[in-house]
Amino acid sequence: MTAATRVLLLAHGSSDQRWCDTFEALAAPTLQSLPEARVAYMELASPTLEEEVGKAVTEGIGDIRVVPLFLAAGRHLRKDVPAMLEEYRQRFGVDITLLPPIGEDPRLGQVLKDIVEGTLEESHA
Amino acid sequence: MTAATRVLLLAHGSSDQRWCDTFEALAAPTLQSLPEARVAYMELASPTLEEEVGKAVTEGIGDIRVVPLFLAAGRHLRKDVPAMLEEYRQRFGVDITLLPPIGEDPRLGQVLKDIVEGTLEESHA
Repeated sequence: MTAATRVLLLAHGSSDQRWCDTFEALAAPTLQSLPEARVAYMELASPTLEEEVGKAVTEGIGDIRVVPLFLAAGRHLRKDVPAMLEEYRQRFGVDITLLPPIGEDPRLGQVLKDIVEGTLEESHA
Repeated sequence: MTAATRVLLLAHGSSDQRWCDTFEALAAPTLQSLPEARVAYMELASPTLEEEVGKAVTEGIGDIRVVPLFLAAGRHLRKDVPAMLEEYRQRFGVDITLLPPIGEDPRLGQVLKDIVEGTLEESHA
């Protein structure tokens, strides 16, 4: 692992702190395990994506990977976020890669099955 | 497993078929493994939650468990969906349990860590 890569776990953001708390809990194992990972919000909460990109550049990071904490790609991930990232690439002169939303990873489907099975077992216990 | 339980995997819904396709893929392992599971949409796509609750009641199901395919609980899961479910309980005379959004399950945090680690390993290979 080089110090030159930063992973930004991108959540939509909300003015409801409980919503953000869920994302921070979701991100916690990644943040604990990977020192190069941070949470960033698209809107309505901080730190923003823009702030975290700026901070990474200040720290000398040349390669930013954005992992969307979204289950599927809607308008935000198809239009708004790519436009934001293109602006940051030009403004900050940094490589930024937008990865697929986590909901597209087949491992999530397996975990969903485990969760639902667990729910049914509890209810029949 | 009794035939009297139905699990509804509740997604928000979108007019963009690609969005819905991602949720169907996410749900696929659960649907293949659990014959009592179905996908239902809150709005903008079909089948709707209302349609699936009605269908379950017609099939003699007395116990419906709604598993939200959401990462966190915002306004929809705190207000809109509970109000919809309360209406369906009264109208259809059926037990409906709203479970926590899947993003609150600690297993998702572990999978996120695996996904991010995989992304970093690929990029350093």
